[in-house]
Amino acid sequence: MPTLPTPRLTVVGAGPGDPELLTLKGARVLAEADVVLYDALANDELLAYAPTALQIFVGKRRGKRAYSQDEINALIVAQARQHGHVVRLKGGDPFVFGRGREEMLYAEAHGLATAYVPGISSAVAAAGSLGIPVTHRGLSEGFRVLTATTSSGELSGEVLEAARANATTVILMGLSRLEEIMQLFARYGAAQRPAAVVQNGTLPNARLVVGTVATLATQAAAAGIGAPAIIVVGDVVTLATAQATPQQAATILYQYAQVA
Amino acid sequence: MPTLPTPRLTVVGAGPGDPELLTLKGARVLAEADVVLYDALANDELLAYAPTALQIFVGKRRGKRAYSQDEINALIVAQARQHGHVVRLKGGDPFVFGRGREEMLYAEAHGLATAYVPGISSAVAAAGSLGIPVTHRGLSEGFRVLTATTSSGELSGEVLEAARANATTVILMGLSRLEEIMQLFARYGAAQRPAAVVQNGTLPNARLVVGTVATLATQAAAAGIGAPAIIVVGDVVTLATAQATPQQAATILYQYAQVA
Repeated sequence: MPTLPTPRLTVVGAGPGDPELLTLKGARVLAEADVVLYDALANDELLAYAPTALQIFVGKRRGKRAYSQDEINALIVAQARQHGHVVRLKGGDPFVFGRGREEMLYAEAHGLATAYVPGISSAVAAAGSLGIPVTHRGLSEGFRVLTATTSSGELSGEVLEAARANATTVILMGLSRLEEIMQLFARYGAAQRPAAVVQNGTLPNARLVVGTVATLATQAAAAGIGAPAIIVVGDVVTLATAQATPQQAATILYQYAQVA
Repeated sequence: MPTLPTPRLTVVGAGPGDPELLTLKGARVLAEADVVLYDALANDELLAYAPTALQIFVGKRRGKRAYSQDEINALIVAQARQHGHVVRLKGGDPFVFGRGREEMLYAEAHGLATAYVPGISSAVAAAGSLGIPVTHRGLSEGFRVLTATTSSGELSGEVLEAARANATTVILMGLSRLEEIMQLFARYGAAQRPAAVVQNGTLPNARLVVGTVATLATQAAAAGIGAPAIIVVGDVVTLATAQATPQQAATILYQYAQVA
């Protein structure tokens, strides 16, 4: 009689897009996986690190979810009991708006051992790859990371707080409400503050729009910027470069200097 | 006559401590480096990825700096002109309080090509490795990352802002002023908010102290917690586990439940 596999879950951060930004640990854990449950990733190349694993797509495609969160939770437990080691591969870091801990808690409650392998979050790396650091001596002494809306679809109270503050603000998943968010910042006196949108940060097709709180929404719309994108507000935006890595053909569609 | 090497600088994030949390790109860039200038890292094992490079320590040891920031800047340019590719290896992410962009700007002004390879920041991963996510549905819709003090040694205005807010707050390099910081949070009505200190997060000797804003400083002192450590304030702290990865012999010195 074969021994039953020990059911366990490892949540693994896939990083922001560039497949080389996976960690060494992430690559090892993928190679050891029996099953990989993966979201719509910025880059499917990462699945090549798990050639022997059963690979199941559980993310969103064309705005439609393949599985609800409850179904994903149940699938993790069922697959782990059947096959052993389930790796849950998530874009960015599993604990930065990734519901990673939620899935771990569910798995733990059902007897699975769990582990967390951090990933590079686009919150820092997407703008960073185009020369915009979240902190910089003399420009920013801290940063905030937010999503635009709460789970109920309301504009987050944190956005309002951030609009009043001086720290760098990074907003994930906010592109569809860019105009509304910028209006909120403007209402608190930040209309002239530098602001940027980064689409596909860390990928060869990265695009960057740099302007001010007052101009950004119009510029991003004119440039046809789409998701996935992050919004950055703060003086650090002035440090953007057209090309931060030799591999990247990034486009600054509007220079900060041109709109100031 | 041999061709002169093209002088260039890549700032590379070494990650939070666990050497396996280096990125694949970080490992490749280290292998290609001609010179590595490295800070006091949580883990010197990473230097093994650069066996053929000239390795120069430029960090702090026993509170003493080997080089000033100006000297490091000059060294980057001089070494790149002499040897070619300089890798600046920094703990965590080079753009999260790492002065990475500052060094790139200096190098660019002196004609060097520059690039940035993100690293896993302890801001997310240190607490994460012990089961504390920076965001969690129903508990936190965003997070802030701060240092305790400004470059002039003052308590940062961002700390005061954070004390009034509900988002998760992560404070780096703040252990020596833990009592003062917690008093500030308490003054804004947060005395009963869950709070934690994580020492050596992601390493086998990680230690975790969990309490409230009111109790944390006393508990951390009693436990003899030392640097490097991060402080986390927010409801997400209640999700801490004693052992988040099978490799980790983490100690919860005080359970939240025991002090609540």
